[in-house]
Amino acid sequence: MVLFYTRPTSLIGRQWLRTYTTARSNLTVDALVYSQYGKPTDVLKWHSYPLPALTSETVHVKFLASPINPADVNQVQGAYPLKPPFERLAESDDTKYAVGGNEGVAQVVAVGDNVKGLKIGDQVIMANAGYGTWRTYAAGPASDFQALPMADNISKIQLATLSVNPCTAYRMLKDFVNLKQGDYVIQNGANSAVGQSVIQLAKAWGIKTINVVRNRPDIDDLRKDLEQLGATHVITDDTLGSHETKSMIKAWGQPKLGLNCVGGKSATEMARHLSANGQYVTYGAMARAPLALPASLLIFKNLAFHGFWMSRWTDTHSVEERTNMVNELIGLMKQGAFTEPKWTPVEWNEQAVKTAVDQGIQGFGTGKQVILF
Amino acid sequence: MVLFYTRPTSLIGRQWLRTYTTARSNLTVDALVYSQYGKPTDVLKWHSYPLPALTSETVHVKFLASPINPADVNQVQGAYPLKPPFERLAESDDTKYAVGGNEGVAQVVAVGDNVKGLKIGDQVIMANAGYGTWRTYAAGPASDFQALPMADNISKIQLATLSVNPCTAYRMLKDFVNLKQGDYVIQNGANSAVGQSVIQLAKAWGIKTINVVRNRPDIDDLRKDLEQLGATHVITDDTLGSHETKSMIKAWGQPKLGLNCVGGKSATEMARHLSANGQYVTYGAMARAPLALPASLLIFKNLAFHGFWMSRWTDTHSVEERTNMVNELIGLMKQGAFTEPKWTPVEWNEQAVKTAVDQGIQGFGTGKQVILF
Repeated sequence: MVLFYTRPTSLIGRQWLRTYTTARSNLTVDALVYSQYGKPTDVLKWHSYPLPALTSETVHVKFLASPINPADVNQVQGAYPLKPPFERLAESDDTKYAVGGNEGVAQVVAVGDNVKGLKIGDQVIMANAGYGTWRTYAAGPASDFQALPMADNISKIQLATLSVNPCTAYRMLKDFVNLKQGDYVIQNGANSAVGQSVIQLAKAWGIKTINVVRNRPDIDDLRKDLEQLGATHVITDDTLGSHETKSMIKAWGQPKLGLNCVGGKSATEMARHLSANGQYVTYGAMARAPLALPASLLIFKNLAFHGFWMSRWTDTHSVEERTNMVNELIGLMKQGAFTEPKWTPVEWNEQAVKTAVDQGIQGFGTGKQVILF
Repeated sequence: MVLFYTRPTSLIGRQWLRTYTTARSNLTVDALVYSQYGKPTDVLKWHSYPLPALTSETVHVKFLASPINPADVNQVQGAYPLKPPFERLAESDDTKYAVGGNEGVAQVVAVGDNVKGLKIGDQVIMANAGYGTWRTYAAGPASDFQALPMADNISKIQLATLSVNPCTAYRMLKDFVNLKQGDYVIQNGANSAVGQSVIQLAKAWGIKTINVVRNRPDIDDLRKDLEQLGATHVITDDTLGSHETKSMIKAWGQPKLGLNCVGGKSATEMARHLSANGQYVTYGAMARAPLALPASLLIFKNLAFHGFWMSRWTDTHSVEERTNMVNELIGLMKQGAFTEPKWTPVEWNEQAVKTAVDQGIQGFGTGKQVILF
């Protein structure tokens, strides 16, 4: 027996569900796929295939929104260590494809009768790293998906962009040093999606933040924006090496934790501001330059340098741990303590998504690009 | 009441003790001291002062041997983070001095009657980091010194050089990753005093070592020497980046722990050979170049980079922990599993010690220079 959804929600109306109910055996999936690594706009292609029929052990989900993250682009290029599964998406396919994208929110639209833990209408994120999310529908076992708590005041943009950036910020603040209220964290790339998540989580948990951004003509506006989010201090990377900055940070309180998504010279300068025995976590390399560590910071100051990668965390921790984290983040969203990131909508068609991927490669754009299905 | 030593040992004969007994109130200490930081041969000077009289709470020790370590030289230069105490060594001094040296073995020659845990004849090392050891005698509370187990087949050179290099090797092998028998460690500077200690401890504990040394004309001789000590493999740093070395190390078993006293490019190459989640410990910077870390090693390979400094360990751990370590090391020495380092004797007079310090600065010399008092 297959259960069908019978009451309307804010996300799925009656009309669509009626369509699904009558046409479930021949629903078509539209997906942006690739069969080999390469330049994304060359290798990405639109592919339509029939959604596998529901079985008693599987669910069907309909994607609602999926962001285009830099890592998604690197993955298509073949330059990302998380390799997607290349597989025949339908029996009629003669090529193995990977579906683009790794993050997104979907809604359960059909549930096999032996499935436990998911019901029609549930909003879900992907339970594992590397699940292709640039597609309209997917079919699979319940263990592929993780249900989210519902709340009227949380947007699908917030949910679609929850599993990478806010979770990265959450884990980095929790897992490397025991931060107490009033302790300081320093981070560069503070205006990035992770950076903004760090600011908001730290604020919610009573932790103070020193936020390093690149100097720019509109620095005062950016400072105000970040302070509004909860940033304690905002400084520019070109002042990191100065005696004034050193004294200032000493007066505020030297941070126990540094979060680095930039690399290069200013990342080394940032490390010098940590307190003795501080922990320094690298999760990105925007400057594409290695982190140079003077031996004295390691030997005499006893700093420790780690990396963080959310995909690895997800693959090496239990669903329960992830659920606790996600529920806490959604709790903060409900309270209004965690806001929607800056984003721009991307229409769901081949040309629009390819153009958005191109923008992702070139590194400009105003906020995160999110595909709306 | 003051207890005097009455039976001869291998180290102190009756004759000397008779002298001590009769002349204890006006014994003279000869010390190599400095009153300001600077070029060691300029600022180091010979200074004689009366040994403070024994009290019921103090002991007198006579130094037997003390090495000249590179850190001692840096300390005189003022370039070392461990700052010595500058103090009036005798009431008659009108200048505050620091005594050179940080390591050595001494023998207890007199014990105040309230002193517990030390007796005349005990061989001791310094209990705390930063104790000036380039002097003939010292007076102080028992807590300044740590008694060593005695054994006939252990030389005073082994004891004089025990507390820095062998202890550094011991802690680095124990404290960063749980190594099991058959696991691999990779280290550069494998022919250094710490490197040789690592080889011997690893051998004793069933851990395999990949030992990186600089290429040199007599590389085959050095390889044989290190293999004789217990090295599993010896390779040269100029091959670290090659595909052959990569395949070879993969075939042996990728190390879980890397020990770095060099820095620079080859230290980065060494890090690439670690297994995923590996730990990398820097305890020196012979190449005087920072360690450059590509973000991928941190983020995707999940390597963690630490520093180790024996002085900090000593200052932050209990005497009991240190005693356990020292006893285990001396146990290995008794069994012949831990040999005397290569060393050259330095005579105890101003000119000889200054010449030895000069050699330490210039970085040549055959083995560790040890002052014999």
